[in-house]
Amino acid sequence: MSVDIGDSSMSRLLKLAHKFNCFYLSGLKSGECRPFIVEGFQVGLIRPDVMKQLLRYPEVFRVTSQYVELNPAFRDYEERTAKVDHVLRELRGNHAFIALKGWRDECYEVKVKFHTESLLRMDRSATCLFGIRNYGVDINGYVRHPKLGLCIWLQQRSSTKQTWPDKWDNMVGGGLSVGHSILETAHKEAMEEASIPTELLKNLISAGCVSFYFESERGLFPNTEFVFDLELPLEFIPQNADGEVQKFELLTAQQCVERIVTPDFKTTSAPVTLDFLIRHGFISAENEPYYNLIMELLHVPLQNIYNNQSFKENGQVNNSNI
Amino acid sequence: MSVDIGDSSMSRLLKLAHKFNCFYLSGLKSGECRPFIVEGFQVGLIRPDVMKQLLRYPEVFRVTSQYVELNPAFRDYEERTAKVDHVLRELRGNHAFIALKGWRDECYEVKVKFHTESLLRMDRSATCLFGIRNYGVDINGYVRHPKLGLCIWLQQRSSTKQTWPDKWDNMVGGGLSVGHSILETAHKEAMEEASIPTELLKNLISAGCVSFYFESERGLFPNTEFVFDLELPLEFIPQNADGEVQKFELLTAQQCVERIVTPDFKTTSAPVTLDFLIRHGFISAENEPYYNLIMELLHVPLQNIYNNQSFKENGQVNNSNI
Repeated sequence: MSVDIGDSSMSRLLKLAHKFNCFYLSGLKSGECRPFIVEGFQVGLIRPDVMKQLLRYPEVFRVTSQYVELNPAFRDYEERTAKVDHVLRELRGNHAFIALKGWRDECYEVKVKFHTESLLRMDRSATCLFGIRNYGVDINGYVRHPKLGLCIWLQQRSSTKQTWPDKWDNMVGGGLSVGHSILETAHKEAMEEASIPTELLKNLISAGCVSFYFESERGLFPNTEFVFDLELPLEFIPQNADGEVQKFELLTAQQCVERIVTPDFKTTSAPVTLDFLIRHGFISAENEPYYNLIMELLHVPLQNIYNNQSFKENGQVNNSNI
Repeated sequence: MSVDIGDSSMSRLLKLAHKFNCFYLSGLKSGECRPFIVEGFQVGLIRPDVMKQLLRYPEVFRVTSQYVELNPAFRDYEERTAKVDHVLRELRGNHAFIALKGWRDECYEVKVKFHTESLLRMDRSATCLFGIRNYGVDINGYVRHPKLGLCIWLQQRSSTKQTWPDKWDNMVGGGLSVGHSILETAHKEAMEEASIPTELLKNLISAGCVSFYFESERGLFPNTEFVFDLELPLEFIPQNADGEVQKFELLTAQQCVERIVTPDFKTTSAPVTLDFLIRHGFISAENEPYYNLIMELLHVPLQNIYNNQSFKENGQVNNSNI
């Protein structure tokens, strides 16, 4: 008797989970990228196209057949930051990478893990070139509509945004940049992006985080998003204040599912929406056959992908992933 | 300048997440266990102590240096089930394993993944001997108390239970046994364990699932728990109906945190409670430094641990884990 065990009929939502995890599920295994080492610890992964450019800066980056290391002679956080920044500005001037066209003059910290000390800071447009772990904050703004049930506010990103212009996105979202805490960032972005008054922000509820590993032509995105839920009164309508949003739209949960599976939705924001729809019971094991696979793909073990053992001791790369 | 990157000061909750993932985080890497193959697919892992016993049944189990295979000559689901059952009953009679002392006359399906066809069924007490994936259902019963805030109902398991007697546990929980769907199991257990009336069960909300890989003296537990939340009215008091519960207690969220970190709480139920406390904002990035690590450890990638490639083709084990 033959046994049918195939996954041939992947659902739309499982396909979406594969899309935002394209690097986790395939690129990572190709073995093309090399660990990026700072002070003996792996903080990223570097693709061959980036390695090629870094070879031009041997006084800053040591490129070996096993890994790429930031010169360990740099004394401290400030020196590491300055040396890398200098290279990045030159590469930007040479138009070496698409990613650097989106230079932001806003920095992300480069750390081994979220709770550990920062080793240097780097313009946020450049972190994807080094596969640096990225942390963001997202707010799911929702309404319990008397007739339509669970409804979700989405924003359409401005057409002038450097990344993902015109794409649909969660109501509020932003990267965690240098000097700002998670809750601070949530409040700041809620006010700037959607003019949510402090009074309503009292109802903000921390609801977990999602992690995934995406890759695009710009680079590598091992992202962790800290997720908040905010129930809004029916009469509240978000208004953009910083010019980064084209418009807001209130969708039913079903319309929201239809929207996130289209190419019009920002791929790296979909995990947050999907997680929301699962946590609130709209997507369940009753209507999604790959439910438990999707839940695992919303929380991939980024903590294990970059090996945290010291590379100083033996100069060896031992990137054992689980 | 030296850089402090150590994880020496693990929090209580991170320690707990390591405890229920002891096999995922250490046993798995030891390489002592061998894949258990049925019809060419890996469905489990077998420890050396179990392998030793299975060697006595060469007509049922082929034990090689690479894997343990169920005799591929068995024709179908029923034959595979009968042959394995026969061995298990003999091993039970010989008192070969502690796990089999808890024989239940209630079977779990043995599948490659949750959504794939079952290959055989096996008494639920025996699945941990083969590291078979286990699926359960849990209900977080909670109350929004006007003075105490978020409060959670816990149960204390009966002292006569075969597993985890006297331990504290979630209000309602049960394994998914042959012939029952997830929602059906949730309703059945809610009525048997806590006498929750149908009227209140209408408020049951599917809220995701957790996955982890635990090991005890009994065996291996790669578990996925489908999680439901149920807000209860203040005046409702759960009453046990099947003799499997000693008592119920309503705890504040903080008391609940204190309870789950003690040895008095069933280790394999703690992920469900921890996930609940995170999703409802009681544990957040503001009060838990290892928040994002814990979230990943509540959803470990069980889907990747058992390699799903066919073992028939080349007879080779290639257990590439991510």
